[in-house]
Amino acid sequence: MTKGEITRQRIIAEAAPIFNQRGFEGASMQDIMQATGLEKGGLYRHFSSKEELAVEAFQYALDRSIRLKLPLVPPGISAVDHLCLLVEHFVASKSSLPGGCPLMNTAIDSDDGNPALRDLARKGIQNWQTRLIAIVDAGLKRGEIRKGTASRRIANTIIATLEGALMITRIEGRSAALQDAQESLIDMLRQLAPAPSQPSGLHKS
Amino acid sequence: MTKGEITRQRIIAEAAPIFNQRGFEGASMQDIMQATGLEKGGLYRHFSSKEELAVEAFQYALDRSIRLKLPLVPPGISAVDHLCLLVEHFVASKSSLPGGCPLMNTAIDSDDGNPALRDLARKGIQNWQTRLIAIVDAGLKRGEIRKGTASRRIANTIIATLEGALMITRIEGRSAALQDAQESLIDMLRQLAPAPSQPSGLHKS
Repeated sequence: MTKGEITRQRIIAEAAPIFNQRGFEGASMQDIMQATGLEKGGLYRHFSSKEELAVEAFQYALDRSIRLKLPLVPPGISAVDHLCLLVEHFVASKSSLPGGCPLMNTAIDSDDGNPALRDLARKGIQNWQTRLIAIVDAGLKRGEIRKGTASRRIANTIIATLEGALMITRIEGRSAALQDAQESLIDMLRQLAPAPSQPSGLHKS
Repeated sequence: MTKGEITRQRIIAEAAPIFNQRGFEGASMQDIMQATGLEKGGLYRHFSSKEELAVEAFQYALDRSIRLKLPLVPPGISAVDHLCLLVEHFVASKSSLPGGCPLMNTAIDSDDGNPALRDLARKGIQNWQTRLIAIVDAGLKRGEIRKGTASRRIANTIIATLEGALMITRIEGRSAALQDAQESLIDMLRQLAPAPSQPSGLHKS
């Protein structure tokens, strides 16, 4: 990396928590000058606009968040166990940077606002959906998930419930809502396994 | 109402969609002057600060939203049917004002920001939880809901899933996520009814 690229990366890393906490409108170039110790001219040497910096900062925050929220997956794990592991890891893992989930923040911040940020939020949700749908579809193929299960419904329900619970958790200042969401999602996911072909009662007692 | 009170109410109603779309930081007094046709002095005659106006505007938006999102409930309805009706009505009803759910917007906007708005968002979530918990608890008492069901978990799961799905729906520009959330929640709620004491197979065929 050139010296210029290193400075650019540092600005992005230092602007990310500011945009994540205050939103696109709420974060001023003044705030970012203060955090980075750079003059306005110095910032604009690396970014043509506040929007360009915000887009890079959001992408940085999202990448960090994904790295933290994605668990190590043991090989040969079943689709249902994989989905449960994702949910549990999401609930257990710390926030990647101050201000809460960058995806939710940017989605809510940009839904009536900045189109470049809205596109990024849309892609972030799409990637998450695609990842979850692939796990459900693989499970359907391997017979680990009941035939007829709508993979998109499972993906959307997991994302919605976790993100909504994170919002409640942040506003309540306690993790009860995330714990509750986890329990309900694990309940739902455990039921995706096909019913055993013989009633298990026959083998017991 | 005095003429002053009428003007005050009109300002609140006209400021509410602006705050709901742009957030507390993003909405400027300039925007509100433009929407109301009042000068700065005129606005500050009715509200001591932008914060005071934002708090009133959020309360107005939330009241409107609750009125729209709460269905008429037929008398004698079971707890499970009541919860299903609430979910279906939430999904089917239109947004109360531009900018999406005021509760979610204010929660995300204020979680690192304005304490007065954060308190209002916290109270909004608390009221919703209290309402849902009361329905589950009444159902438990009447034997319509399985013993041991954690009413707070049901309440938090409903709120989280609906709010998260609304976020996805707004960013995707299509209602798939809300439809998916509804289906998953109705599935969960139908399972809250106690198992029939005799296997229903005995009475059939």
